[in-house]
Amino acid sequence: MDKERIEKQFAFCREIDKEKFIGRQTYLTGAKRKENDAEHAWHMAIMTLLLSEYANEKIDVLKTISMLLIHDLVEIDAGDTFAYDEEAKKTQRERELMAADRIFGLLPSDQGDKLRALWDEFEEGTTPEAKFAHTMDNIQPTMLNAATNGKSWKEKGVQLSQILNRNSNTADGSQTLWEYSLQHFIEPNIEKGNIIEDTEIKKV
Amino acid sequence: MDKERIEKQFAFCREIDKEKFIGRQTYLTGAKRKENDAEHAWHMAIMTLLLSEYANEKIDVLKTISMLLIHDLVEIDAGDTFAYDEEAKKTQRERELMAADRIFGLLPSDQGDKLRALWDEFEEGTTPEAKFAHTMDNIQPTMLNAATNGKSWKEKGVQLSQILNRNSNTADGSQTLWEYSLQHFIEPNIEKGNIIEDTEIKKV
Repeated sequence: MDKERIEKQFAFCREIDKEKFIGRQTYLTGAKRKENDAEHAWHMAIMTLLLSEYANEKIDVLKTISMLLIHDLVEIDAGDTFAYDEEAKKTQRERELMAADRIFGLLPSDQGDKLRALWDEFEEGTTPEAKFAHTMDNIQPTMLNAATNGKSWKEKGVQLSQILNRNSNTADGSQTLWEYSLQHFIEPNIEKGNIIEDTEIKKV
Repeated sequence: MDKERIEKQFAFCREIDKEKFIGRQTYLTGAKRKENDAEHAWHMAIMTLLLSEYANEKIDVLKTISMLLIHDLVEIDAGDTFAYDEEAKKTQRERELMAADRIFGLLPSDQGDKLRALWDEFEEGTTPEAKFAHTMDNIQPTMLNAATNGKSWKEKGVQLSQILNRNSNTADGSQTLWEYSLQHFIEPNIEKGNIIEDTEIKKV
């Protein structure tokens, strides 16, 4: 056993526990409390296991799940940036890059480099796995928002144009899942008035 | 798109959100609140990515991670059974079997059967993947208990014999990780009096 290696691995494993304290804006079932990043990542990992058959391009499931499991670790330092907070989004990239250096830097360099490359790939969003990961990252909170009668959308006064903008890459990973999300999660909540209809949905 | 299939998949994805409400006995960093099952599964999935090199036998990482992600879903119906609650453990198996039938039964049968088989394999604990999954399931809370100065052990008055009994299969998945856990997590907490020393540790 390489003592320095295993110490670094466990230092990282202890550090990432803090992701469980990073709150998100999505309410869980029952709409009494909001989700945290670790719960969100776990949920998307299982969804990927079950929904990968709908990916536009064939994906490596382990790689996609690994990407989703680690993609929010930078928020331990950088915090969660709400998808519709334009001011916070200006500094988001810089804050997250510094966090990535520190957090992935805790690991032995071979593993740190590997996770960092996965995170970079997610951020770039161009490979089939990264595209599908973004589809999951958009669909999972949309599903929960719909399941809680749009509570988070109503509280924030979210407009349809913001949702469509946020989801601009959802169909890149899976056309099928984007259409499903539109029909079953978004459109019914426009009808109920939970999402402000400030624009029209253009069917692709 | 097979409409019935995708409806079943999303019904399952919505249902498993409830795992985020299943509390465990382990305190998180800072020792202010305890972990839930979804957070626990996420944490072990990343630990498996990083620590699989210490498995006694070569493991399929995707299979092991999948097993860990889903292994506590039965607790949505059956609840978390504390490792040292002998009374609750008597009915645990029966409660969890009923839960497995209902929860995995929500999925299209091919996927339900696959996840059920993974859960059965974890429960049997005989394949290399199931053995390593149990190693993770034991090591992760031990690591957190040690990181919170044994708070959960102290609160429950946990004895060394109970910990050794709970960990009777930890070395089956990874001798290296069991030895690390013993030296770095368990023994220091015996010395501090956080674990009641009612027996001796026999070195293998």
